[in-house]
Amino acid sequence: MDDLPIRDELRGKSPYGAPQLDVPVRLNTNENPYPLPEPLVQRIAERVRDAARELNRYPDRDAVELRTELAKYLTRTCGHEVALEQVWAANGSNEVLQQLLQAFGGPGRTAIGFEPSYSMHALISRGTGTGWLSGPRNTDFTIDVGAAEAAIAEHRPDVVFITSPNNPTGTAVDAATVRRLYDAAQAAKPSMVVVDEAYGEFSHHPSLLPLIEGRRHLVVSRTMSKAFGAAGLRLGYLAAHPAVVDAVQLVRLPYHLSAVTQATALAALEHTDTLLGYVDQLKAERDRIVTELRAAGCEVTDSDANFVQFGRFDDAHAAWQQLLDRGVLVRDNGVPGHLRVTAGTPAENDAFLDAVRELMKENA
Amino acid sequence: MDDLPIRDELRGKSPYGAPQLDVPVRLNTNENPYPLPEPLVQRIAERVRDAARELNRYPDRDAVELRTELAKYLTRTCGHEVALEQVWAANGSNEVLQQLLQAFGGPGRTAIGFEPSYSMHALISRGTGTGWLSGPRNTDFTIDVGAAEAAIAEHRPDVVFITSPNNPTGTAVDAATVRRLYDAAQAAKPSMVVVDEAYGEFSHHPSLLPLIEGRRHLVVSRTMSKAFGAAGLRLGYLAAHPAVVDAVQLVRLPYHLSAVTQATALAALEHTDTLLGYVDQLKAERDRIVTELRAAGCEVTDSDANFVQFGRFDDAHAAWQQLLDRGVLVRDNGVPGHLRVTAGTPAENDAFLDAVRELMKENA
Repeated sequence: MDDLPIRDELRGKSPYGAPQLDVPVRLNTNENPYPLPEPLVQRIAERVRDAARELNRYPDRDAVELRTELAKYLTRTCGHEVALEQVWAANGSNEVLQQLLQAFGGPGRTAIGFEPSYSMHALISRGTGTGWLSGPRNTDFTIDVGAAEAAIAEHRPDVVFITSPNNPTGTAVDAATVRRLYDAAQAAKPSMVVVDEAYGEFSHHPSLLPLIEGRRHLVVSRTMSKAFGAAGLRLGYLAAHPAVVDAVQLVRLPYHLSAVTQATALAALEHTDTLLGYVDQLKAERDRIVTELRAAGCEVTDSDANFVQFGRFDDAHAAWQQLLDRGVLVRDNGVPGHLRVTAGTPAENDAFLDAVRELMKENA
Repeated sequence: MDDLPIRDELRGKSPYGAPQLDVPVRLNTNENPYPLPEPLVQRIAERVRDAARELNRYPDRDAVELRTELAKYLTRTCGHEVALEQVWAANGSNEVLQQLLQAFGGPGRTAIGFEPSYSMHALISRGTGTGWLSGPRNTDFTIDVGAAEAAIAEHRPDVVFITSPNNPTGTAVDAATVRRLYDAAQAAKPSMVVVDEAYGEFSHHPSLLPLIEGRRHLVVSRTMSKAFGAAGLRLGYLAAHPAVVDAVQLVRLPYHLSAVTQATALAALEHTDTLLGYVDQLKAERDRIVTELRAAGCEVTDSDANFVQFGRFDDAHAAWQQLLDRGVLVRDNGVPGHLRVTAGTPAENDAFLDAVRELMKENA
């Protein structure tokens, strides 16, 4: 590849992505372990069959029916009335974030995140020519609000990412912190603040979405990958002031969201109650993992997501390999001393916890 | 929107897209007028049902099965052996082109196209921060090869777009022209040359794809929107040297292609023969439209696509409106004096031709 005229900043890079290994217990990509219920599978087939009968036509470019149903879902679950005009959807929240950065970031502009956090924020920033600034966290992985305010005041970024619950640490951000960082970002320059709530449904705390009220530059991004058990669907969405939705429409590729994606997402939204039942089970399992890991002698970061960060290992990668040798695949995110495990089924979590206990004894 | 901190170059812009009007005869977006055959609709439902049973997992990030089948299709129809490693797929050829520009264009780099041509080339260039250069055409809408070579030598673009058949004119480009422009582009600097064959299956001429042999910087992009009658699916793909496929993987969003998209495209590829039968019918209708329009006194550009450019009107937009008043929606692409009509069903084409004949008499 190196003799191709690729951009200099791509030279020597490798594609993003966790290893897709064939292992008995795969707890490395924060997938929902529960397959969609069979009635929903049938409903998807039905809705896609109907959509396929018009597949020779372009899809609804504005995805009006889907955005309407997403708005109803948010209204119902986030304690804030959301309208169609405030919702936008794309192929995964990655594409939502890419569109936001194309509209509000890009060459000559910068974005900031508080790291460790979701590494795609930096990657999509670079992919859109947006400069990336790495902001600080406290040693307990909460955002250091004073330091964050100072970084915003100093660097005057155009886009501020706040991930809650944070990936890979699981840390929730409270509303007061978002308000302070939003105010700091507006004081520095009129910046966009993007609250990434990909794991919002798993939190002990309510959604931060009501904060969009009266804050035209605040965006909340969401996904159906986790809570809806639909990582394979690639459906991300955002809620914000209608003007933000207008703005991303200037940069979205026309007809970006296929008719089969729209049909499948609509079917899943019809089964929200069942899927949120799985979320409750996963939250209970997540809490159990935290408790059991602590009992096993691990240092565990409080988690509001469907995964748990744990350590502390002298050599996290060696620990990752030791778990893999026992048939359990977790994620090494490069956070020194720590690994991340996704909450799986009770049986998967038992297998993981047994492997960790063995590991802790061995390494003791 | 104007009080949002959007990028300056987006201010005052409106989203790309043809009007989606509810009109009896819609021949404005180059859609295939034939719905997918019912056995294929059933097969899509079946394959999507299977995919939905694993929808809680991320899709195959590398879409290996789909790319394998696309490679077989190209090998079979383009007279050139193509392997999995030479094929990449994304959400519509728009996303394929966006990924190419992210890897090979971007800030500080430029792309050139020979206009009028597919307007998304310029728009996606701008959306990726790539400078856009508008190259010339002859008055008959063929590429002026000497002028194009001179433009390439002068501006040394990083990416050269060659659209064949060209949209909106329908003009095919011959292999000799591609060879000359490729050589010019390599002489100026090592540039990528992207041959956009979105309408390739409708051409009187063979695919330009065999030219990728021995040309590492040549890319052929394709789509299932037109020949496969699947505009609603959003499946674009490219064929090139394997190093180019490696390069776009550095910029693609991870898991960009959903499991339902992959399943639906695989089902459609199983029905290639039936769908190519529709292509033959559309080619015959396209040729009939050309003949009949000329008989009606129109100036018609030779077409190798599933659409026809015709004129010459003193006021093309007024002619567009006159056709719309008769229930026929065609496309006003802004080419002075010209409109573009998509080949529809025989009945739709009859309605269109009747409307044009009336118009020509009225305006005579």
